[in-house]
This record gives sequence, C-alpha cells and structure tokens, in this order.
Amino acid sequence: MTQVTETSALQLRSLVKKTGELELSLVSVDIPAPADNEVLVRIEASPINPSDIGLLFGAADMSTATVTQGEHGPVVTARIPEKGMKAMAARLDMSMPVGNEGAGVVVAAGASEAAQKLMGKTVAVLGGAMYAQYRCVPVEQCLPLQGATPAEGASSFVNPLTALGMVETMRREGHKALVHTAAASNLGQMLNRICQKDQVSLVNIVRSKEQADLLKKDGAKYVVDSTSDNFMQELTDALVETGATIAFDAIGGGKLAGQILSCMEAAANRSAKEYSRYGSTTFKQVYIYGGLDMRPTELVRDFGMTWSMGGWLLFPFLQKTDPATVQKLKQRVADEIKTTFASHYTREVSLAEALQPDALAAYGKRATGTKYLINPAKA
Amino acid sequence: MTQVTETSALQLRSLVKKTGELELSLVSVDIPAPADNEVLVRIEASPINPSDIGLLFGAADMSTATVTQGEHGPVVTARIPEKGMKAMAARLDMSMPVGNEGAGVVVAAGASEAAQKLMGKTVAVLGGAMYAQYRCVPVEQCLPLQGATPAEGASSFVNPLTALGMVETMRREGHKALVHTAAASNLGQMLNRICQKDQVSLVNIVRSKEQADLLKKDGAKYVVDSTSDNFMQELTDALVETGATIAFDAIGGGKLAGQILSCMEAAANRSAKEYSRYGSTTFKQVYIYGGLDMRPTELVRDFGMTWSMGGWLLFPFLQKTDPATVQKLKQRVADEIKTTFASHYTREVSLAEALQPDALAAYGKRATGTKYLINPAKA
Repeated sequence: MTQVTETSALQLRSLVKKTGELELSLVSVDIPAPADNEVLVRIEASPINPSDIGLLFGAADMSTATVTQGEHGPVVTARIPEKGMKAMAARLDMSMPVGNEGAGVVVAAGASEAAQKLMGKTVAVLGGAMYAQYRCVPVEQCLPLQGATPAEGASSFVNPLTALGMVETMRREGHKALVHTAAASNLGQMLNRICQKDQVSLVNIVRSKEQADLLKKDGAKYVVDSTSDNFMQELTDALVETGATIAFDAIGGGKLAGQILSCMEAAANRSAKEYSRYGSTTFKQVYIYGGLDMRPTELVRDFGMTWSMGGWLLFPFLQKTDPATVQKLKQRVADEIKTTFASHYTREVSLAEALQPDALAAYGKRATGTKYLINPAKA
Repeated sequence: MTQVTETSALQLRSLVKKTGELELSLVSVDIPAPADNEVLVRIEASPINPSDIGLLFGAADMSTATVTQGEHGPVVTARIPEKGMKAMAARLDMSMPVGNEGAGVVVAAGASEAAQKLMGKTVAVLGGAMYAQYRCVPVEQCLPLQGATPAEGASSFVNPLTALGMVETMRREGHKALVHTAAASNLGQMLNRICQKDQVSLVNIVRSKEQADLLKKDGAKYVVDSTSDNFMQELTDALVETGATIAFDAIGGGKLAGQILSCMEAAANRSAKEYSRYGSTTFKQVYIYGGLDMRPTELVRDFGMTWSMGGWLLFPFLQKTDPATVQKLKQRVADEIKTTFASHYTREVSLAEALQPDALAAYGKRATGTKYLINPAKA
C-alpha cells in the first residue's frame, strides 16, 4: 500500500574527500518499498542539532565554504585543515547521509499489522539520514504523535531523551540535584521544565542576562550567569542551597567544567569541620556531553581527589537502560511533546536552503537561539 | 611493661599561621603510656612521601624558607602566597604532626595479649605523626616485620598498598592491562615488580633515558619516554600491544593525562571498522593519584566520548575494599618487603637534619631519585 508516485527523491549528503575537501550536496536516491515490518515516512521536519553539525561539517573550516549549483541543487565546498584530517580517516570518500531525527507522515507501509496501523499517521522517527524527502524505517523506530504536527514532533528523541537521561543518571548515581550548562538551549529549557515537574533542584548556568531572564520566566529558581564578576561565588551559593554534586556540560572546552568541580568542592567544604589535605570526601561528577567550545578543557585541580569527569552520550545511556524504562521515557515525550518537550526554531528551511551561505553561517554557530529546522517537503 | 626511661620526646610539627607564614619545628611532647590494646613504638625510620610533603609544606613558597635555631632544634619559616591561603583555611594556627608511615621497635605494650605479643618486635606502622621519636598506636595499626630492619620496613603501607590497589582496581573495573606515569619512582618500581610477578602488562611512562634504563634493567617490557619526539606514537604502539585502557597518573598537571586518553583512543581506532562521530566505544579511564606537576590539567578532547578521568586515593580504596582482601594485601607486603616492595632512599636524616636547607631543597623537589628517610632515633 503506498501513496507515493515518484521513484526517486532527494537526500542531503556530506562527503570528506581524501584531498582535504568537504562537499555537501543533494543527491537523488531510489525510494525503497517498505519490507513487512517497515514504513515509508515522508519527512516534513528534521532539526539541525549540534550532533548533526558534527557529522555535517566534519573538521572543515566553514569560513572557507563556497556554494555552486549542482545537478540537484546547491553544492557546498570547504577546506579541511590538515590537522583535522586525522580524525576524518574512517569516513574518507564515503558519501554520508545526515540527520539523526525527524518527523513526517507514513505514506507507505509493509504487510505487518504493526506497519499497517501506522499508515497515514504522523510519526517521529529516530535513526539517521533524516535530511531526505523519504525515509524507510522499521516500525520500532517510530513514535506516533497524537495531535502534533511534524514540526512539533521533529525533536522527539535527541533533546527530550537526553534531558530525561540526565535526570535518570542523577538518580541512579546517587545525586540529589544537578547542574546544567548552556542551560537556555532547547535542551536546557526542557530540562528546566522536567525538573520543575519532578521537583528536582536544577542549577542553570547561562552566558547572558537574556538567557537568564528566559529561564527565570519559565520558572527556573537557580540561574547563574558565567559572565558575572561574582560567578564562582554565585555558583557556590546555588550549590550549597541545592546540594547538587553532578553536572552535565555542553561546552566542554575552556575552564567552566573545572570551575564547576571547584565550586562543588567549595560548597562541600563550607560545612567541613576538619582539615583534609586531600579535599572533601564529597563525590563530585561532571559529565561533558557536548563540545560547543572546541578548545582544550582546563582543570585547575583545586577540588581535592574525590571527583570524576567523563563523557556522557544518549545512545550508550539508552543501551544500558532496561527497555521498559526507555519505553516509559519515550511515552512521556509523546504525551508532553507540546508542553515539557516543546522545541523552538529560528527558521524553517528546505533541503536546498539549508545549503545556502546565510543558513550555514547561522546554524553553524551552534549558539543558543540559532536552531534551524529542515523541511524536506518544502520546495 | 616499658623499656623507656624518658618522659618526653621530640616530634616534628607543621604550622600555618594566620599571618601567612609556614613554620616547621621540633616540639617536645609527653611520651604516653600505652592503653591495653596499644603499643609504644620507638620510630627508627619514616619515609618522606609526596603525600607527606603536601601536609609538611602546605601552600608555602619554599624558595623563601629561612632556618633559625629554636629551643629543640631548627625552626624553618617560609612565606605562603596569598592565593595559597584559601586552601589552608581549615588548618590555620593548628600545629600539625606529620609522617604517614614508619617502622620501629615496640618498647612498651598494653596489658592485652595482642599488645604483649608485639613487645620487642620490629613493626611497620600506619597512622600519621610518625616524624617523632615515639608513637603510641593500637595493635591493629602494626604490621610485624619478619627479619626486616625498620629502614627496610619503613615504607610498608603507602607505596606498596597503592601499587597493589592499582592492580586490584584495574581488575575490578574490567581492564586487562595498565599504564603508570612517573614510573621509575619507588612506587613505580614496586608496580613493575608486582605486574611481572602477576603477569599483568604494564606500560611505564618515564621522563628520561636513565629512568627507562632503570626499569628495563628491572625487567620492564614496555617503557615509553615522554621526552621522545615520537612519544605519542610509541605510547600508542604499547597500548595496542598490551590493550591497556586504564592509567594511574602521578603527575596531574599539564598535557600528559589527556595525551594518555588520546593515545588509548588512537589504539582503539586502529582496529575500528566503521566511522563513529563520537569516537570509539572503548571505555578509557585515567586516574590522577598525585600532583607532581601543580599546573592545570589540559585535555585536548580528541578521544571521543567514552572516557573518564578522576581522582584516586589509597584510603578511599581501602575503605571500600572488604577487610579480608585488605589483610591479604598487607600480608603480601610483609612477606615480600625485601623483594617486591623494597624501597630505596637517597639519604637517611635525623629529625633536625630534615629541617636543614639542603634537605628541604632536595626532597622538596619531589623528583624521582630524591627520596629521604627520617630516622628519629638518629642523633
């Protein structure tokens, strides 16, 4: 059963060439017929997340990008600095589709009952290659959206499950409150709403007064501005009040991750009775889950010896969490997609518009408030 | 029962004054009579470990040290830079005894059978305040030394149990080989011997050819010199060969800890079949257990997202390990104190000699091959 008459459609590709060039283009690919347990989704909305930008741009220097016209639309070319090529070794000369998640309408379905039940439904989909007009996926990768549009449901997985995963990780690892950086991001706004709903104390770290105001307007109790002259003092005060000993950091580079550990240590020592040459015995954890700042991470190590810093990613978290819990988290996202998990976008663009210089420059900043949504159904 | 005729004896003290001065001196303290389950030990050997130097010098700038003559011997005075005073808050104006471990002869014992059995025996002792002529401790803190002198048994706890704890931690956390930095230290030499005996692959990182030669002469198979032009390549090769994914780093500051993660990632990716934008899924752990380099730690973060860095200390390790295992580790130390756990010292000094400018400058370097042993029984 299908409503599709075309046999091929456009897909966005990222290619790193051995010669040290990045090429972004649109290619024409065959539209597959869904197998028994699969559905074909006409993608109508797919966000450009920071994690997508990593795959899209690779190690290219986007200030060197030029755009020409190719067979199926714009072709972006940019230079990759020599030192960046080492990390690209495993993807050389492989044309890669992009787009972790998206949403659209099921326009063809396989023979299975589960597939047939989705026919005509609006679904959110996780699984890569979403910057495409059509995407064929197994039924299990679809989350049916009740009364929400594709644009409303486009970001149903990466940000919502990451935010829920942080709160879940906090609980499982024995902490009672948490810290979040780049806290006015779409993800941060979701986390702020989750924590209010679940009565978990959250310390939001932002980089401007506007971002602080946005979160406070949305009910945030603890917001600290890292550009404040008294940042360390203000963060320590919030940590004393909340007892937060775990942080999730989207920034990665520079001093912030280490400063959080320093302030956690200062908070722990406010109540210390005795001198310990190895610092407090309070366990302090910072997880780096993003790299908005690509500079090295600098740790001043004035936070004793009871600390840990490490990487945190959604997919390993989901893999080590039992399926029933994961399903519960996904259902919560579907139920609250227009409230707790609502996303905001700066601009909706077509596949071709996503490859224009103004768009590349805007979402390439990875800055709070410059989030783009691709609508591959848009002409 | 006692063989002691004096009623008071000398003890070394470290005092941080509110005025921003460090004072090291010898004081006269009463010799206590042991309670039922205690023994009085005449300390004849106590090492100056890096962890002791932290308590001894605090945040003082030892290049400003001057020595005068006090009532009971030398008095060292040094300035503490203002930025260092914050970390000293909890020990201000408290005269603190120093010396984590030592060894000596039991010269008085309490009434209990366990205490009486130790009378006249040579024992190693853990418990602080060992830079003293006499030390009264509970029987449980003593490790009887069979046929070893106090000098041979002085370092029975900190280095041996730390080295054994590293191997134990490696096994418990699911790694199969390990990396160690400052690997030619006394601790590193012990670890090298343990790993050979236990058939565990160890990658030794050193900072000179002399240190490399020393370890190789002692049977080390993998020794990498961080001053080599090809350091990263050589370390990666050793990591590929051994499969080491956990490291214990005594240095802390600078780039080394991060470079170890980078090389572990490169080693994991040598066998990778597929491009992963988040790096390898091999879990990589670096524990920082010392701070030989006090500069900030710099992480370049080219090692993906599956990593952790944290503090590691002997005492928390012992606390979370079951008592039977701890006892087994201690017994191994006593059994192999002249072989696996043999320590080497640059110089044996009296309490007064330990406070002379030449000695302060030498052991204050915390450099491999400048280890001092205090003999409080020496005139």
